[in-house]
Amino acid sequence: MLTMQDALIRLTGYWAERGCLVAQPMNTEVGAGTLNPATALRVLGPEPWRVAYPEPSVRPDDARYGDNPNRLQTHTQFQVILKPEPGDAQELYLGSLAALGIDLRAHDVRFVEDDWASPALGAWGLGWEVWLDGLEITQFTYFQQSGGLTLDPVSVEITYGMERILMALQGVSHFKDIAYAPGISYGEAFGQAEYEMSRYYLDDADIETNRELFEAYAAEARRMLDARLPVPAHTYVLKCSHAFNVLDSRGAIGTTERARAFARMRGLAHEAAALWVERRAELGHPLGDAAVRPAAEPAPAALPALDAPGTFALEIGVEELPPHEVSRTADDVAERLRRGLEEAGLFTGASSLDAYATPRRIIVVVHGLDPREPDTEQVVKGPRFAAAYDESGAPTRALQGFARGHGIDVADVRKVTVGGGEYAGYVRTVVGRQAAEVLADLVPEIVTGLRAGKNMRWNAPGLSFARPIRWLLALLDGHEVPLAVSGLTAGRTTRVHRTAAEPAVDVPDAASLVAVLREHGIEPDPARRRARVVEDAGALARARGGVIDFAGEDALVEEIVNLVEEPVAILGAFDEKYLELPQEILTTVMRKHQRYLPVRTPDGGLMPCFVAVANGECDHDAVRAGNEAVLRARYEDASFFYHQDLQRTPEQIKEGLGRLTFTERLGSMADRSARIAAIAAELADRLDLTGAERDALRRAAELAKFDLASSMVIELPSLAGTMAREYARRSGEDEAVARALYEMELPRSAGDALPTSPPGAVLAVADRLDLLAGLFAVGSVPTGGSDPFGLRRAALAVTAILRSVPRLAPVMVGDGLAAAARRQPIDVAPEAVAEAERFVARRLEQSLLDEGLPVHVVRAVRPHAGSPARAAETAADLAKLLASPTFERLTTALQRVLRIVPDDVAAGYDPALFTEPAERELHAAFAAVDADLPADPTLPEFYETATTLIDPIDAYFDDVMVMAEDPAVRANRLGFLAAIRDRVAPVLDWREIS
Amino acid sequence: MLTMQDALIRLTGYWAERGCLVAQPMNTEVGAGTLNPATALRVLGPEPWRVAYPEPSVRPDDARYGDNPNRLQTHTQFQVILKPEPGDAQELYLGSLAALGIDLRAHDVRFVEDDWASPALGAWGLGWEVWLDGLEITQFTYFQQSGGLTLDPVSVEITYGMERILMALQGVSHFKDIAYAPGISYGEAFGQAEYEMSRYYLDDADIETNRELFEAYAAEARRMLDARLPVPAHTYVLKCSHAFNVLDSRGAIGTTERARAFARMRGLAHEAAALWVERRAELGHPLGDAAVRPAAEPAPAALPALDAPGTFALEIGVEELPPHEVSRTADDVAERLRRGLEEAGLFTGASSLDAYATPRRIIVVVHGLDPREPDTEQVVKGPRFAAAYDESGAPTRALQGFARGHGIDVADVRKVTVGGGEYAGYVRTVVGRQAAEVLADLVPEIVTGLRAGKNMRWNAPGLSFARPIRWLLALLDGHEVPLAVSGLTAGRTTRVHRTAAEPAVDVPDAASLVAVLREHGIEPDPARRRARVVEDAGALARARGGVIDFAGEDALVEEIVNLVEEPVAILGAFDEKYLELPQEILTTVMRKHQRYLPVRTPDGGLMPCFVAVANGECDHDAVRAGNEAVLRARYEDASFFYHQDLQRTPEQIKEGLGRLTFTERLGSMADRSARIAAIAAELADRLDLTGAERDALRRAAELAKFDLASSMVIELPSLAGTMAREYARRSGEDEAVARALYEMELPRSAGDALPTSPPGAVLAVADRLDLLAGLFAVGSVPTGGSDPFGLRRAALAVTAILRSVPRLAPVMVGDGLAAAARRQPIDVAPEAVAEAERFVARRLEQSLLDEGLPVHVVRAVRPHAGSPARAAETAADLAKLLASPTFERLTTALQRVLRIVPDDVAAGYDPALFTEPAERELHAAFAAVDADLPADPTLPEFYETATTLIDPIDAYFDDVMVMAEDPAVRANRLGFLAAIRDRVAPVLDWREIS
Repeated sequence: MLTMQDALIRLTGYWAERGCLVAQPMNTEVGAGTLNPATALRVLGPEPWRVAYPEPSVRPDDARYGDNPNRLQTHTQFQVILKPEPGDAQELYLGSLAALGIDLRAHDVRFVEDDWASPALGAWGLGWEVWLDGLEITQFTYFQQSGGLTLDPVSVEITYGMERILMALQGVSHFKDIAYAPGISYGEAFGQAEYEMSRYYLDDADIETNRELFEAYAAEARRMLDARLPVPAHTYVLKCSHAFNVLDSRGAIGTTERARAFARMRGLAHEAAALWVERRAELGHPLGDAAVRPAAEPAPAALPALDAPGTFALEIGVEELPPHEVSRTADDVAERLRRGLEEAGLFTGASSLDAYATPRRIIVVVHGLDPREPDTEQVVKGPRFAAAYDESGAPTRALQGFARGHGIDVADVRKVTVGGGEYAGYVRTVVGRQAAEVLADLVPEIVTGLRAGKNMRWNAPGLSFARPIRWLLALLDGHEVPLAVSGLTAGRTTRVHRTAAEPAVDVPDAASLVAVLREHGIEPDPARRRARVVEDAGALARARGGVIDFAGEDALVEEIVNLVEEPVAILGAFDEKYLELPQEILTTVMRKHQRYLPVRTPDGGLMPCFVAVANGECDHDAVRAGNEAVLRARYEDASFFYHQDLQRTPEQIKEGLGRLTFTERLGSMADRSARIAAIAAELADRLDLTGAERDALRRAAELAKFDLASSMVIELPSLAGTMAREYARRSGEDEAVARALYEMELPRSAGDALPTSPPGAVLAVADRLDLLAGLFAVGSVPTGGSDPFGLRRAALAVTAILRSVPRLAPVMVGDGLAAAARRQPIDVAPEAVAEAERFVARRLEQSLLDEGLPVHVVRAVRPHAGSPARAAETAADLAKLLASPTFERLTTALQRVLRIVPDDVAAGYDPALFTEPAERELHAAFAAVDADLPADPTLPEFYETATTLIDPIDAYFDDVMVMAEDPAVRANRLGFLAAIRDRVAPVLDWREIS
Repeated sequence: MLTMQDALIRLTGYWAERGCLVAQPMNTEVGAGTLNPATALRVLGPEPWRVAYPEPSVRPDDARYGDNPNRLQTHTQFQVILKPEPGDAQELYLGSLAALGIDLRAHDVRFVEDDWASPALGAWGLGWEVWLDGLEITQFTYFQQSGGLTLDPVSVEITYGMERILMALQGVSHFKDIAYAPGISYGEAFGQAEYEMSRYYLDDADIETNRELFEAYAAEARRMLDARLPVPAHTYVLKCSHAFNVLDSRGAIGTTERARAFARMRGLAHEAAALWVERRAELGHPLGDAAVRPAAEPAPAALPALDAPGTFALEIGVEELPPHEVSRTADDVAERLRRGLEEAGLFTGASSLDAYATPRRIIVVVHGLDPREPDTEQVVKGPRFAAAYDESGAPTRALQGFARGHGIDVADVRKVTVGGGEYAGYVRTVVGRQAAEVLADLVPEIVTGLRAGKNMRWNAPGLSFARPIRWLLALLDGHEVPLAVSGLTAGRTTRVHRTAAEPAVDVPDAASLVAVLREHGIEPDPARRRARVVEDAGALARARGGVIDFAGEDALVEEIVNLVEEPVAILGAFDEKYLELPQEILTTVMRKHQRYLPVRTPDGGLMPCFVAVANGECDHDAVRAGNEAVLRARYEDASFFYHQDLQRTPEQIKEGLGRLTFTERLGSMADRSARIAAIAAELADRLDLTGAERDALRRAAELAKFDLASSMVIELPSLAGTMAREYARRSGEDEAVARALYEMELPRSAGDALPTSPPGAVLAVADRLDLLAGLFAVGSVPTGGSDPFGLRRAALAVTAILRSVPRLAPVMVGDGLAAAARRQPIDVAPEAVAEAERFVARRLEQSLLDEGLPVHVVRAVRPHAGSPARAAETAADLAKLLASPTFERLTTALQRVLRIVPDDVAAGYDPALFTEPAERELHAAFAAVDADLPADPTLPEFYETATTLIDPIDAYFDDVMVMAEDPAVRANRLGFLAAIRDRVAPVLDWREIS
């Protein structure tokens, strides 16, 4: 059996043979091998570098006393850096798995999108987690930035999770059972340390001391930067980071404090990185310069020519794309190719085009491509016609010179008109380019222009895409089109499964590309892959008497289809005992973590099995066993947390909130929970709730957010609310209470469901109001792209809930924020409340705009910003009324009133001073309207009544000189119009209507 | 070429194959692999453990900015622990060198005594540094104690110094030139970090911050101990230790602070260790129990029998003994064997005995050993004779029973006398034991009783010796004597060079043991080895026209002889340029560090070559080259420091003293230097010095101890004084000044030379007075075996100098200490000065006792303790006078006086009150003596005069009743005797003379 230390020795040997320097783990605690200066600093700058080393990585947060089978406070990473990325790092990596004795043909090894970012280090990269039969065993990243600096060249970072790999290889289900060395298990070797360091990180580390350490380290890092010593500076940043992690695992870090500490560490890390780069430059880059340079222009190659319409096949070979980029990219390439060919006249009515895509290739096949561009005529202008011939009609010297210069006969010259002028000239026929020539220009442009949602660089100057582009196939019928992009030259070679005996295959001609791929087990057509998934997975489920809800799982199926090139469905099972867990837990784990399709009974219950979809043929038993082990481990974890939680009542769980800091100045989560309860009570006072609703609300408020302190939610935060409902039910709370606890977390994301029960809705609103009031009070407002506390989402939630739950109509945003402000543990300035209110109003406007309402409508309903429901309703009404000519007249009339009255004029007049009949008439009309209108009319109510004002207003402005010479008259008139203004202002901001 | 990383990979593989778990370096800075818990904790308790790991070891003190070819702040250790020690660890280790490609037959690999202790860790062990051609490449230790706990079982610790090994293997002379990995040098990989971390440790680390870190770490360690978590506690002890090392390299640690910090760290380390042991016991020792148990008694073996006198050979095979134990042990074994055999009557006048010894074996060969013990007679006592026969003379039942019981005939019974009683009994002849039987009892007793100056335990219960005993050979003529000791059974197999094709050889018979060893290249006779060293080394020197001062190098030759089993002299050379260095530097390095014999010209000058003595035949060129490289590196170092120093004047060098803390409360070394100067000036005022002497003293005092701040002395502290003289001369100081600066450091150790010039002697005394006064003032007094400041040595130096330099006679210790006390930066309590004075007095007494003076003599001269010269002189005089009957009478007379006068009676009397003639006579005699004696008479002066008191005193006590009834008379008489008492007291403490 391969022991853990054998595995480390083999990896060390494998990578040393491939030119890696073998470094040692860092001699201060690091959370990951990335932080070791052999990575963090060496990836910076232009010097080449290859390194491999084990790194026992310390994550205090993962401390579990050694009890959890899969989680350790110190786990062993094996880290490899290849700088510059060599172009075949995936293949090298697979070779290392083979070196560990893994049979790559038997197992399902996959590269699953997983991008990496370390805010504390100012670092990020794009890449994958590598799955072995569903188990994440490695992080594989194209490192793009470190210490806030862009990397050039780009490094590949490969990080093996040794414990996971060994558990899988040895078939054990607890890390302690790994054979570490002959005759000694992992638990025997490291179990005690795991327990004791867990105790330290979770229970016993002194918080005050670790705060002091954090400060001391940060100060020392600062001093070293000032002394221009990046290496010790970096070391102290690492120490800082570890002290922070210790504080965090002790629950001593609030959100504000976290953000501040991160900013500080990021700043120091960035300076250390920049200083390292500077110092290496000063030292003259002792290891050389491997920065990416523009590729040399390849020698122009002979291009094939066609005689008749032909077929063109383009394949862009890539490393595994993120699933959501696969089809989008294929569509994009197809569209741009079609457009380019159409512009060149090569794509005709007789032409057609097929696009295909897998995670590793984008294919477009064009049928009936014209062999060459149509010929065109070009007018060539010579001397002015008047100067081309003398009186005798003989060509002048000018014309003769022109003809000679263009190698034409003077006799062929005719009169041409260019820009209105008449010239001597001729018409030249330009022969159309061969299709291959067009493609040699067009395809590189398309490839260079490829962009995804998140793009990366690799060792290919000028290219930037979701993942590296590794090969190009371009065939025109049977001919290669040797077009070139950034060092890649297209040919006839495609690549099939990496585990194939011959991973590179030549394709005879364009038309057979798809067939060749199918021969090699690759299905380029996503629709066919989807059909196969549905068919095979469905069949597997049926064989067990189950079904798969493919409609409900559409997004997941779409993802699966774009994760594999050859879907192979494998049915796995899990122990029935896990079915006692809430289904949300089971399916969340299946879908989000593992991309497994849940299998259900015909009546919708969950069955103890799942379908995993592997990529390509494999040893089904081995792959099934692997995937089952992964799921078992995840369920075992979940079950542990679930049962741990069930041993306590919601009240007991809630006690834990006191230990969770919310933010430094705003207290703990327990404080926050109490505030939410108080705010909810205040809001409820304004509402017309039933006794049962009030009881449910009061009880739910008492328990508000208790599940945040449950093990399950600490583990899987997306289950907040769900677990509250579950635990509340289990402990015998009323269903209304359980529901309110669930609903108060809604909506969890854009598009998520909203609360519907009044208690749930009230709590949900109170929750967001507390968040907004508190964080605006401490100045933690969103800036630019940064919104660490999710205040935008909170504001949107407030507006959405108030709009969707009519019973909450009496709640006004401003009042609510003021109520929330009064509950904060700090003084909240009135300006902060006002700012928060404006912030919510802007979110409301944004959502109305997003719903398609015109901007002037959205602006016109601003007077209702305090009541999002009212605002939305009014906007809808207004949008309808805008088509009405009467409404337009009313608007115009009211705008005349509004335009003439200065804002600082108060309402107030004496009807006895009215002199003109028009003003008396308007006054009478206004008095009638005023009397008929309710105090706070809706727009339709207002409109219905106020049309009677239109004519009197028009007559008034025709007949009455508002700005009369007599100041008393003028003042009286303005005061009257101001009264009208004030009466109409709450209905709409009429000035905004255009 | 084997790169550094290849070497690490090979060692990892080699030890993994031998059952070692491969661990990772510690993730906090450690000064050595020993501190990694995989060693520090795992060696504790009974559980077996084998581990191997690289450990980048951080020693801030060794930071040299990467400039020094051999010294790095982070050097790479490779650490191996074998627990329990397997019995063949040396052989396993040599196997690992072979695995690195080292040809063990070509090179000179040696195990050179080097014991290891880490006071900070409460750890120690005995073992060797392993030399490869003179280069220390490995530390090999039998670990005896860790964390203050005794280890059972004992572990072997092997620590490879990777940089040194690789420099030797690759033949490079700077660590930066080591090929670390293919295409990348050590300097390229780690040069910048080496520079920057050096900057941190030497120049830029913030002292205040590191002090805070030290405190925070110590407090956290304390808390973890209280929480019963030894692993995090140990980690924090390591962090503590690193913070301390940083402070130390920044020159921020004084002697007192150091001692205090060490005590604190040692205490914490001890508690962590003890707690680990407890916790492992609580866990039930999961890895098993390998504690050493008494060996099972071997089955008694058949012992050979001789017919005639024979030869017995005993060989006790050991791992390399410390050189000074070799001959001593052989003598001891020979003596005990002879005595035992004599007692058994086996060793007769015709017997003889030869002892031999090498570092690996103790041999005794006994010739003419009698074949068995002589027979002896034993009286067997029966019933009382009176009860043995009845009246008829017939045997009683009692006698019959006795005879039956002893299987004898009643007729054989006779009367025997035992303890004065008469009994019936008989005389039995006891047949003497065979020689082999005697030896089987005697030899195990001798082996078990082997003891050295420092003893260790290994995996052999009941044994304790300088190094492990590995085999026993015991032959009686041609027969094995299979005697057994602690699991070892003697046989006929000896071991020869470990590199021999057959390292174990059978010996046919006792007489041929020595010859067999010689056949295999081992010379067991130290005298012959010495002769060979002298002959071969002398010849090599002569061939170069040089000589070796074997007489002057006697101690070194003795050491060399006992470092090898087969001396092979090899002449090496070094670059002549190093001859410009002071010879003391060159020879100190040769002798102390390398055990090389210096080669001199016939007139005594140093030649640029040396003789190294290898152990056994080897490739002379390779071994020469290796040794030359080692010496070159050491000289290069020395030269660097020397020239660095010469660029500065003594004054400039002295500026550095301000940065060297002496002790926390007593200021810097600069302060101390100034105090010494002031004290010296005050002492000088009491002396009769010439003008030149005063000038020299004044100037030397200005520069006192300046060389402690020189690079050379910081590097080689034993050159303090030597370098001061050298640098003073070079900078043009007077020879008298240079000499005084040199002499002030004398004596450097017991038996060292003493200063002879008055300026040197005054400074030397002032130096020690300052040390004593200061440290007694702060309470840092020696306790038990601990004397970190060398106060005992300082006190002995004061007494020795004051005794040896007559011109310093006027200096009184108490005055000197008082003068020194006045210069201290803190208030010195009078009690502290008095305590220091008593301390010096006790040292003086001890040295007089050591010189052979009887204890009562030493006590009698206590009145002169303030003047050691006077005390010694008086003691010598007294010792002589003790033989004189007159002196005895004088003493007796004076003691009568002293006995009768209570201590609290003051002198004072009225002669007019004398009534008895005897008292008047005594008074007259005393008045005459008083008048004749000088104020402070020497003992001979006193004796010469005071004998006249003998008779009057005797008469006085015969005739006069001192305790007269009349109080006035009584008081007058006592007052008179008190006057005598006071007059004789300064001469001697007469009461002590017996």
